Amino acid sequence: MIWEQTTITLSPHPRGFHLVTDEVLRQGPELSGCKVGLLHLFIQHTSASLCLSENADPDVRGDLERHFNVMVPENAPHYEHVTEGPDDMPAHVKNVLLGSSLSIPVSNGHPALGTWQGICLCEHRDRAGARRIVATLQGRE
Amino acid sequence: MIWEQTTITLSPHPRGFHLVTDEVLRQGPELSGCKVGLLHLFIQHTSASLCLSENADPDVRGDLERHFNVMVPENAPHYEHVTEGPDDMPAHVKNVLLGSSLSIPVSNGHPALGTWQGICLCEHRDRAGARRIVATLQGRE
Amino acid sequence: MIWEQTTITLSPHPRGFHLVTDEVLRQGPELSGCKVGLLHLFIQHTSASLCLSENADPDVRGDLERHFNVMVPENAPHYEHVTEGPDDMPAHVKNVLLGSSLSIPVSNGHPALGTWQGICLCEHRDRAGARRIVATLQGRE
Repeated sequence: MIWEQTTITLSPHPRGFHLVTDEVLRQGPELSGCKVGLLHLFIQHTSASLCLSENADPDVRGDLERHFNVMVPENAPHYEHVTEGPDDMPAHVKNVLLGSSLSIPVSNGHPALGTWQGICLCEHRDRAGARRIVATLQGRE
Repeated sequence: MIWEQTTITLSPHPRGFHLVTDEVLRQGPELSGCKVGLLHLFIQHTSASLCLSENADPDVRGDLERHFNVMVPENAPHYEHVTEGPDDMPAHVKNVLLGSSLSIPVSNGHPALGTWQGICLCEHRDRAGARRIVATLQGRE
Repeated sequence: MIWEQTTITLSPHPRGFHLVTDEVLRQGPELSGCKVGLLHLFIQHTSASLCLSENADPDVRGDLERHFNVMVPENAPHYEHVTEGPDDMPAHVKNVLLGSSLSIPVSNGHPALGTWQGICLCEHRDRAGARRIVATLQGRE
């Protein structure tokens, strides 16, 4: 049985959706010995998220950022949590919409992603620091 | 210890939310020998999603489709990824909102769903093909 | 190998987002013997959800409730599932947006939550009863 856990640090990214598949798989637990398993990725923050999305056309990631800014605008009149800047409360809303974790099947030593699926860091803050992801691999050899 | 993985193929569905509990459990790993575990379902696409929702009144699934079409309209002026049709970019947004995977507890050989919970395929494209789900069962006997 | 499963009952909460980290960890499986693992929390309902969000300022949870009420209003003209009250169909939409489960890494006997992350019960109904969560712990000693 395999149980491995590592902490991945992603360097600061500008606000928006970013493809980080290679970086996450490089820093995460070694998958090659895992025949059947699951890779769990958990971001330890409340204003950045993880999602899977289209990995080819960067316009998709731009459109995601633009659409989330329409659905969750800054300076909405009903926000009371406003002391940390206009990008802060929208960041918390986007985070609960997108979620803090991903769980990806592992098959024969590889993540069983679809052809067009990539791992995205969704950075909701204007000026964020590095982001921490706890990566847990479990499975059988 | 149990680790089983199968690939489920769902035949093409029209755009909308569809109850697929029986079909998924029929094609997925056999649960009967699993005393405590988790069934992980992972759709390998970026324009169709999985969710759990009400399994009784089909109007709920119609309302979900209608409401997502309001929150994520076609032809929004901020979309730049438009070459694959007006239903394509909304499909990617809906997919990140709903997510690509479900993880369902297994108890005494059965999925521990609530009385009203069913597994839904959320098909976001107008003319989609078959959809592939990787189903991973882990647990103890 | 550890596989433990318990059912957590949360007493009725008013509509809104509620911090329940302590209550969930108190009622859930004992984490102290788990060196590396995952704690899976699954709410068996279609009109209440679980999420991780900011654990310090209660205004964040108020803003989340207010913002979801804007994104998913009562009495929208496209709702057809209306017989169970104006808060019912919005509850189902909020549930699929937020999701029914959380999966939290466990490290050295503790949940590996970030400093500001707390477990929230998102109660979408005006007058809900108690809510049931199936908590599954897996990992190694």
